[in-house]
Amino acid sequence: MNKIRAAIFGASGMVGQRFVSMLQDHPQIELIAAYSSDRSRGRRLEDIWKLPEITLSEDTASMKLEKLSINDAVKKRIEIAFGALPADLAKQVEIEAASAGLAIFSNASAYRMEADVPILIPEINFDHLGIVDLQRENREFKGFIVTNANCSVTGLAVALKPLVDRYSFSDVHVSTYQAISGAGYPGIPSLDINANCFPFIKNEEEKMNREARKILGEYNGKDIVPRDIEVWPHCVRVPSRDGHLEAVSISIEGEQPTLEEVVKTFSSFTGMPQKLRLPSAPEKPVIVRREDDRPQPLLDAMAGSPARARGMAVSVGRIRVDRNLLRFFCLVHNTIRGGAGDSVLNAECAIHEGKI
Amino acid sequence: MNKIRAAIFGASGMVGQRFVSMLQDHPQIELIAAYSSDRSRGRRLEDIWKLPEITLSEDTASMKLEKLSINDAVKKRIEIAFGALPADLAKQVEIEAASAGLAIFSNASAYRMEADVPILIPEINFDHLGIVDLQRENREFKGFIVTNANCSVTGLAVALKPLVDRYSFSDVHVSTYQAISGAGYPGIPSLDINANCFPFIKNEEEKMNREARKILGEYNGKDIVPRDIEVWPHCVRVPSRDGHLEAVSISIEGEQPTLEEVVKTFSSFTGMPQKLRLPSAPEKPVIVRREDDRPQPLLDAMAGSPARARGMAVSVGRIRVDRNLLRFFCLVHNTIRGGAGDSVLNAECAIHEGKI
Amino acid sequence: MNKIRAAIFGASGMVGQRFVSMLQDHPQIELIAAYSSDRSRGRRLEDIWKLPEITLSEDTASMKLEKLSINDAVKKRIEIAFGALPADLAKQVEIEAASAGLAIFSNASAYRMEADVPILIPEINFDHLGIVDLQRENREFKGFIVTNANCSVTGLAVALKPLVDRYSFSDVHVSTYQAISGAGYPGIPSLDINANCFPFIKNEEEKMNREARKILGEYNGKDIVPRDIEVWPHCVRVPSRDGHLEAVSISIEGEQPTLEEVVKTFSSFTGMPQKLRLPSAPEKPVIVRREDDRPQPLLDAMAGSPARARGMAVSVGRIRVDRNLLRFFCLVHNTIRGGAGDSVLNAECAIHEGKI
Amino acid sequence: MNKIRAAIFGASGMVGQRFVSMLQDHPQIELIAAYSSDRSRGRRLEDIWKLPEITLSEDTASMKLEKLSINDAVKKRIEIAFGALPADLAKQVEIEAASAGLAIFSNASAYRMEADVPILIPEINFDHLGIVDLQRENREFKGFIVTNANCSVTGLAVALKPLVDRYSFSDVHVSTYQAISGAGYPGIPSLDINANCFPFIKNEEEKMNREARKILGEYNGKDIVPRDIEVWPHCVRVPSRDGHLEAVSISIEGEQPTLEEVVKTFSSFTGMPQKLRLPSAPEKPVIVRREDDRPQPLLDAMAGSPARARGMAVSVGRIRVDRNLLRFFCLVHNTIRGGAGDSVLNAECAIHEGKI
Repeated sequence: MNKIRAAIFGASGMVGQRFVSMLQDHPQIELIAAYSSDRSRGRRLEDIWKLPEITLSEDTASMKLEKLSINDAVKKRIEIAFGALPADLAKQVEIEAASAGLAIFSNASAYRMEADVPILIPEINFDHLGIVDLQRENREFKGFIVTNANCSVTGLAVALKPLVDRYSFSDVHVSTYQAISGAGYPGIPSLDINANCFPFIKNEEEKMNREARKILGEYNGKDIVPRDIEVWPHCVRVPSRDGHLEAVSISIEGEQPTLEEVVKTFSSFTGMPQKLRLPSAPEKPVIVRREDDRPQPLLDAMAGSPARARGMAVSVGRIRVDRNLLRFFCLVHNTIRGGAGDSVLNAECAIHEGKI
Repeated sequence: MNKIRAAIFGASGMVGQRFVSMLQDHPQIELIAAYSSDRSRGRRLEDIWKLPEITLSEDTASMKLEKLSINDAVKKRIEIAFGALPADLAKQVEIEAASAGLAIFSNASAYRMEADVPILIPEINFDHLGIVDLQRENREFKGFIVTNANCSVTGLAVALKPLVDRYSFSDVHVSTYQAISGAGYPGIPSLDINANCFPFIKNEEEKMNREARKILGEYNGKDIVPRDIEVWPHCVRVPSRDGHLEAVSISIEGEQPTLEEVVKTFSSFTGMPQKLRLPSAPEKPVIVRREDDRPQPLLDAMAGSPARARGMAVSVGRIRVDRNLLRFFCLVHNTIRGGAGDSVLNAECAIHEGKI
Repeated sequence: MNKIRAAIFGASGMVGQRFVSMLQDHPQIELIAAYSSDRSRGRRLEDIWKLPEITLSEDTASMKLEKLSINDAVKKRIEIAFGALPADLAKQVEIEAASAGLAIFSNASAYRMEADVPILIPEINFDHLGIVDLQRENREFKGFIVTNANCSVTGLAVALKPLVDRYSFSDVHVSTYQAISGAGYPGIPSLDINANCFPFIKNEEEKMNREARKILGEYNGKDIVPRDIEVWPHCVRVPSRDGHLEAVSISIEGEQPTLEEVVKTFSSFTGMPQKLRLPSAPEKPVIVRREDDRPQPLLDAMAGSPARARGMAVSVGRIRVDRNLLRFFCLVHNTIRGGAGDSVLNAECAIHEGKI
Repeated sequence: MNKIRAAIFGASGMVGQRFVSMLQDHPQIELIAAYSSDRSRGRRLEDIWKLPEITLSEDTASMKLEKLSINDAVKKRIEIAFGALPADLAKQVEIEAASAGLAIFSNASAYRMEADVPILIPEINFDHLGIVDLQRENREFKGFIVTNANCSVTGLAVALKPLVDRYSFSDVHVSTYQAISGAGYPGIPSLDINANCFPFIKNEEEKMNREARKILGEYNGKDIVPRDIEVWPHCVRVPSRDGHLEAVSISIEGEQPTLEEVVKTFSSFTGMPQKLRLPSAPEKPVIVRREDDRPQPLLDAMAGSPARARGMAVSVGRIRVDRNLLRFFCLVHNTIRGGAGDSVLNAECAIHEGKI
């Protein structure tokens, strides 16, 4: 089988480099072009590389960043584009690319809240992918746009999915401990974060609520109806490098859950990507830690097996049940599961569903 | 007026050094002896000094750490002892010292939850000091024991006091971002916290709930009746040096508060230490920050004026009101207001009340 | 006596704020205007304040950043301007201001290497100030320009001065451990420095050599003749906040020095600012630490007494003499002695010498 | 071929875990027992695991830490023991184990400076391995002891070897930027290193000089004659996690080298492990970086290919030649090439040479 030809829009940044890493030896997708919108154009990937734990293959290392051009992508017979552009630029580029026939899997927030664009986390809402048919019709696209969620909401939504399936609750209190890679490069100045916490991330709290409602919502064949839930976040940047830790408190309505029941609810959670054995699907989308002091960003951000799915599992730990209050921590790798990795998995879903 | 003669029990640690700093030029209290229970005995204070922002006077700098001895304290006519020993050691020493006639103002947790020992934060519960008369009687003490609260609960309780006086609510959700100085020295290994968050602090979550209930409780002349409130914490160590940041969410019962009303409730808060103009009382016990990105540990831990009261004010910021949910951040200097500073202020209260 | 009216050019940055801090209660100088070249114009000083250890007086706190204008400065009868602009902007502004009659004391590198502009560290080269008379003549200035040195070279030069006065040597090997505040704001991205070392600081190594030669050179009434010495630096940014630590190795020619002799050479060092008892002069410009593990940026950056001179002393420690090789560490507060503080001291010298 | 049965003495620490990581799928060696001397006995390797970038195989993950016992090792027919015990414990255990017939490859400093024990870095001094025959004879060992070098000296010695082979010089000035993992666990308290540099590492400077002289020395069949060179270090701990960066300055005697000649000298360096294609040998023991800002601990500590040799290459960068002074930075992974990795490579050498 020939591999599907793919490009990255915005390959030089933190999420862009994760796309490169996940695509460099992908069984179904071949990275043909790494486009960049910034001053890194013309440089080789190895010369801008900032992910020390990932070894580039020789071919990938020597790939050059090219000037972003939809025409060039069409000429190169690109079928899929992975999006890691800043939101304002994505707004313009992605629509043009979808019109030209590309399937866009984007980390940008530009189109997430459009009625006919899914925010896909396929363990949660695999069926939302169906709305792209409507999108194509509505917008006369030859391609389509699928988005992944905001990095913080991804970890939370994956942890919430098994809970909403089993328990009743309406309010989710969450405080985040977000890593510096989430702000991109150059991102947050070291003087603001070295030996400090920075209790504000623009628009992040709003995104967490509205995206969670949509992701956990129901697709009725016509609309994605948001779930009737409220997420109340406090978003804080801390001096860790990768992995957003989140402290979650939920009042369960009705009968009091038991600790073991909650543990089982989390650890038995599985979804379509697991069923379909998609290449980037983690064996277990939620890994429960029973130790006192886990999950930790440094030790658990890369959770997930097999090797291709490192960073794709959400870790949950310190589960506590007091009366009807359920508390736990969850941890997500913000640029893998909460960014590039989720979009690659989304593309694998779309390939499986014959959308590409 | 002659100054009251004081000692520090455990002067070499992080809280012990804050005691030294707050006493070195105190108008009512004179530091006579700095006792140490560890290997730093015999060393001069300047040789073990770890608080770069505090300049020691020559006299204080050359004071030597002495072997802890109640007999020696009695011989030196010490009237007040400030306690900064580890809990297990404090358990034994403080009771012996109180029997021998010393007034103990302690940061140790050993006696905080005893029925006849107050956890004093005088802006909140000045009247709880009265219970020491009962304590003396019960225990046949010539002196007495007064404690300050756990560092995390101090910031929270100060922020809650104006709220409980005005609004009805029963549950407080709080996530902490606790500085490394809170773990003492040597404290948390750098491998556990450098570029990481550590989501577990032994016993801290339990302390936050039970101490908050007692501090905000009512003293009826016989008992301190805990307030009927539940604090639900997530306690996390982060790589900041001083200042515990806390993210707080509270559902207000009854009519929805307005943002400006909440701001006013916080900023108009004042207590007995302010009324009595005690030397270490901050002009405003709660400082409201209106910026998007405050309070921050690095910039706001030392809040409080005048100069003697630096680190004694709790900063509150990012106040948000959505429907009936009130959210905000508070920040407390963990070894000043949440440790030594509170105990010094407690001693000033006791002096004013003629207990010493 | 009326105070001399002063302005800051570029008051919002890291060095600019240090100027504010050192001038806010200066006995001879009054801060009249805080000019800014950036988007912080119109904001109050307290709203942009980033130096938590410095408490602003109410007057200073409410001072507004104004648009930089030489005309405005002249209209306000400003006599001294302290310069903290970026080099390219300083290049244009300082010459205009000097022409208009202002005495400029600048942290910018723009004019440091001009033949008729002194790089003044008055404990080392007080007499170099004399060259400003020549400068005025040459350039038809009504005012003049005096510069302080690069932050790294300042610590080194202060430590070298007592050595060059006593020993013969030609080569100085030095490796720096430079704090993030040295890069200004926003400065170095956190992704580059969090849990990392960054072994490159543009132009810094070149500056260290050429400025050291000039500072330690001789003024013969006409020229400043560089000292015949070579400084061979390795400049590295590390994740500390304030204080540049430097590891220095020097081969002494001739007789081998003894450790105690070197200690005495450092600790007995003194200069004109000490003799003249200038307000910002530290009692001892070099403080020798005898402990194994000092100086440390966190503990020693603010060395210097009295209170006004905090951060103005250079700490020297771990002095080792092996055969003819002398090794030691020195530490300088990069934005105080290595920036604003030195320029304030330079102004005090100029006032004393009747240049203003 | 049957694999050689191996144990780790002290498997729970930072170097011990690196031994586990390098042995878990080794082609020639099988890890049979992981001994521990501390309170981690009885725990599974995955429960104490602190190396997030290394995924343990299921077999290794579930291996239990056992109480260290030479008898047990003999009973289990262990042939090789990798040593990662503290020096004082190693002193006693390693000699007992060598007597009992085990070949010890040790990271402990206990025996490094013994006349008949090699400090082996096989790219430099492969032939020093020969001295173990003498050692066996001298000490009536059935086994033998081979050591790897101190972590800091390893990076320096690898970088010096190609230089000593080509140029004449006698003095090496070096300043280190050492990562916190080098201090082991719990190691340096976070209060001492967070946002700080700590300019003292006990005995490290002495080790660097004496070990470098021995490693670069000549084995004449009877003695290892130290090279006549002096290393003058400044050793500093900085808040990075892995990878010791070192700033090196050397005066070359005789003709001035050119930059390109030095680059070529470094990059063409190769040794016996490369010639013999040993499993853990990096293709290139020295990797030259030509960028302005490399090597960096975060990006380059894991340098080395193929996959098995990650962390085994020393990176050299910012090479500068001025007159006869050669300056550069080198970077070594302190617990891989500067610890466990080097000892594993040493074992591969001994296997090849038929010593086991």
